[in-house]
Amino acid sequence: MAEVSRRSALFGGVGLVGGALGGALAMRGAQAPSPDPGSAPGEGGGAPWAGVGQAVETFYGANQGGIATVPQARLALVAFDLLAGASRSTLVRIMRIWTDDAARLTRGAPGLTDTEPELATVPARLTVTVGYGPGVFEAAGLQARRPEWLAPLPPFSVDRLEEGWCGGDLVLQICADDEVTVAHAVRVLVKEVRELAQVRWVQRGFRRGMGTQALGTTMRNLMGQVDGTVQPDVAGVDVGLLWAGPGPRSGTGWLEGGTSLVVRRIRLELDTWDELDRPAREQVVGRRLADGAPLTGTAEHDDPDLEAVNTLGFPVIDVAAHIRRSRSEKPGERFLRRGYNYDEPPGAGVPGSSGLVFVTFQADPVAQLVPIQQRLAEMDLLNTWTTPIGSAVFAVPPGCQEGEYLGHGLFG
Amino acid sequence: MAEVSRRSALFGGVGLVGGALGGALAMRGAQAPSPDPGSAPGEGGGAPWAGVGQAVETFYGANQGGIATVPQARLALVAFDLLAGASRSTLVRIMRIWTDDAARLTRGAPGLTDTEPELATVPARLTVTVGYGPGVFEAAGLQARRPEWLAPLPPFSVDRLEEGWCGGDLVLQICADDEVTVAHAVRVLVKEVRELAQVRWVQRGFRRGMGTQALGTTMRNLMGQVDGTVQPDVAGVDVGLLWAGPGPRSGTGWLEGGTSLVVRRIRLELDTWDELDRPAREQVVGRRLADGAPLTGTAEHDDPDLEAVNTLGFPVIDVAAHIRRSRSEKPGERFLRRGYNYDEPPGAGVPGSSGLVFVTFQADPVAQLVPIQQRLAEMDLLNTWTTPIGSAVFAVPPGCQEGEYLGHGLFG
Repeated sequence: MAEVSRRSALFGGVGLVGGALGGALAMRGAQAPSPDPGSAPGEGGGAPWAGVGQAVETFYGANQGGIATVPQARLALVAFDLLAGASRSTLVRIMRIWTDDAARLTRGAPGLTDTEPELATVPARLTVTVGYGPGVFEAAGLQARRPEWLAPLPPFSVDRLEEGWCGGDLVLQICADDEVTVAHAVRVLVKEVRELAQVRWVQRGFRRGMGTQALGTTMRNLMGQVDGTVQPDVAGVDVGLLWAGPGPRSGTGWLEGGTSLVVRRIRLELDTWDELDRPAREQVVGRRLADGAPLTGTAEHDDPDLEAVNTLGFPVIDVAAHIRRSRSEKPGERFLRRGYNYDEPPGAGVPGSSGLVFVTFQADPVAQLVPIQQRLAEMDLLNTWTTPIGSAVFAVPPGCQEGEYLGHGLFG
Repeated sequence: MAEVSRRSALFGGVGLVGGALGGALAMRGAQAPSPDPGSAPGEGGGAPWAGVGQAVETFYGANQGGIATVPQARLALVAFDLLAGASRSTLVRIMRIWTDDAARLTRGAPGLTDTEPELATVPARLTVTVGYGPGVFEAAGLQARRPEWLAPLPPFSVDRLEEGWCGGDLVLQICADDEVTVAHAVRVLVKEVRELAQVRWVQRGFRRGMGTQALGTTMRNLMGQVDGTVQPDVAGVDVGLLWAGPGPRSGTGWLEGGTSLVVRRIRLELDTWDELDRPAREQVVGRRLADGAPLTGTAEHDDPDLEAVNTLGFPVIDVAAHIRRSRSEKPGERFLRRGYNYDEPPGAGVPGSSGLVFVTFQADPVAQLVPIQQRLAEMDLLNTWTTPIGSAVFAVPPGCQEGEYLGHGLFG
C-alpha cells in the first residue's frame, strides 16, 4: 500500500484528477465512468486509464453537446451538400439517423448498423453536434423559418477564401479525446447518409487534451500563443450570448436553446512569423508569449490596461495589437471560441500548411461576431501572419429528449 | 478525504495507473514525472493529468527510442530526399542537428533554435527515431558499409505502389501521446535541415493511447480487427530478431544495436469489407472480432490450432486465412510490428482513404520479413481488402551517448 501512495504522489494526486474531471463534466451533467472496472464494455473496460476513455458526455438535453462542453483533444468538422431533389422528408430522415446514432455512439455503444462495433467502445467524451446551412431551409421549403443571420459572413478585406473550405448545407462537429473514436464516428455518420448527402469538406483539428494538461488550460496555437483567453461566461451571466432566444431573428422560435456555429479556416504564415523576435511577437498580440498575460499585466486573465503608456508616452499595448482590436466596448460583441489547430503535412516541394480551425458559437453571429471580424480586418497587426481561407455559417438546433430527433421543432 | 477515495475508485485505482506506466516505461528506463508538481515546466506543469504529458522516454542509450518503446498514441513518419551535392559532411551536419534537438525535445525542452519554445513543454513520451535509406550511403561514399538488405523490398504481386509513398534518403519517426507535441517536433526537425534535405512524404497515424485504454492492449485497425497480437519477445529470447549484430550483412559492424525499419502503406477497402458479415470476416483473418482470439481458441494470445477440423472435416481456420498465412514454421521469420491507423478525409466527390501505416522493425528485413510478405502475396484471404500503396526500407543506427551523434559509427 506504500507503493500505491508513492504512485499517487508521482501522478499528481488522484483526488485532483477526479475533482477536475468531475467539475468540468458537470457542465453537461456528464456521467463518470463506472466504478466497477469489470462492468465497463469492450477493450477499454477496466483499464487503469479508463477515466478518460470511458468518460461520457450526455447526449440528450436542452442544448446539444460539443458547445459548452470542455473542449476535447480532437475535432472533425464534416460539411455536406444535400443531393439534388432533397426535401423536408429527406432532412427528417437524415436527422433521425444522426440523432439515433449520435445517442448511441456518445454513450460508447455501436451505431444502429455499425459494422465495426468494437471501435465504438471508447466514448472518450465524444460529442456530435449538428448544424444547418442556408441550403437546408431552401430544400425543406422553410425559408420563412431561416434565421435572419444565416448566410455567408460578409466579405472581409483580409479574406482569401477557397471555395473548397466554404459553405455546406449540413455540418457535423465531432469531438472526442481519442482519434480512433472520432474516425469511427465520422465513418458511421457519413456512411449512414451517403445516399442522401455528399461530403463537401472535412476539417480536422487538435489541441492538447485530457491526459496531457490540466482541464481548463487555455490552448496554444501553432504560433506558440496562448489563444482563447477571453470567453463569455456562458454558464452564467452571459448565457444569452450563446443560446438563441425565441425571437424572430432566430427563425420564429424553433431555434430557442440552439445557437450558431461559425467556422473560419485561418492559415498561419509560420515561416515569416518565425522571423520575428519575441518582443516583436508580443507587440503583435499584446500578450506575453510565456504565459499569455497582457503586456500591462502579470497573469493570463488580467484585464489589459489599454490606456497605459511607457516612459516615452507611447501605448504599452500597440494601437493595432490583436488584443486591443479584438475587443469591443459593446458587451454584446462577444462569442464563445472553441478552436483547434490544424497541420497539413508538407509534400514533395510543397510546404506544409498550418493554422487554426477557428470555431465560434454565438446566439447571433451578425450582431456578435461580424463587428469584431470587421474591426480586425480593418486593422490588426496579426493580419500579416493570418489568412482566412475558409468560412461557413450554420444554425445549430437545440438538443432533444429521448424519442425526439434533432431539429424536430423545425421540420416536425 | 472520503471524496478522494471515492474518486480513486471511480478512476480505476491510481496504484494500477502508476504500476502499468512504470512497468511499460521501464523498457527504456524512462523517467517518471516529477513528484513535485511545482517543478514540472510549462503549461503542463503541475496539471492533474501531468502523468501522461510529462512522461519522458530517455533519449540516450544503446538503442534508439521509438522501437521497443510501448507505442504512443500518435505517429508522424517524415521521409526526406537529400539535395543535390549532399556529402558525408552534409550528413554529419544533419545528424548533429537532429541528435541535439531530439535529445532536447524528448525531455520536454525546446530545440536549440526553437522559435516556439512554449510548445516544447509537454514531452508526452516523445521519441525521435532516425533511419537511412540507400541514398545516404551513396551520398556519403560509404557503399561498402551499406547493409546488404538495404534496398527496396522486392515487388509483390499485390502491390499497387504509388511513387509518392515510396523510398526516401532519410526518415524520422516521431511518436508521442499528444498531437501538439508531434506537430511541434516535426516542424522543428524539418525546419532545422531545410537547407540540406527536402521532405519527400509524411505519413501520420494514430491508435488509442495513454488515457483511453490500458497500456499493452493490442490495437484495433479501422476494419475493427485486433491487429498485432503476435510479437517476438524482443526484450527476452528474441532480442536477436530486433537488433542487428556485428556481422557483415549489417554493414561491417556500425549497425550493431541498430535495426531496420520497413514502412508499408496499406490501404483498406472498407466499403467492400463492410459488406461482409461477421462470420465471413472472422474466416478471413482466422480470429474472432470480439476479442481477437483464434477461431480455435478462447483468448487473444492462444496459439491457433491450425490442424483443427470441424464436424464436416474442414479446417476450422481456413487454409488461406491471414492468421495461417502470416506465420512461418521458421522462428527467424518474425519481426516487431509497430503500426498505426491512418484516415484521410473524403473531399468533394472523392471518397476518403483509410488504412494502416504498417511499421516493422527487424534485424534483417530480407531474412525475416520478405518471406512472410511473399507468402501473403501468394495467398491470403485478406488481400481482397488490403492494397499496399507505399513501401520504404531504412537502416536505423544504434542509439548514442551524450556528446555523440546518431550514426557517428558510420560517418565518424
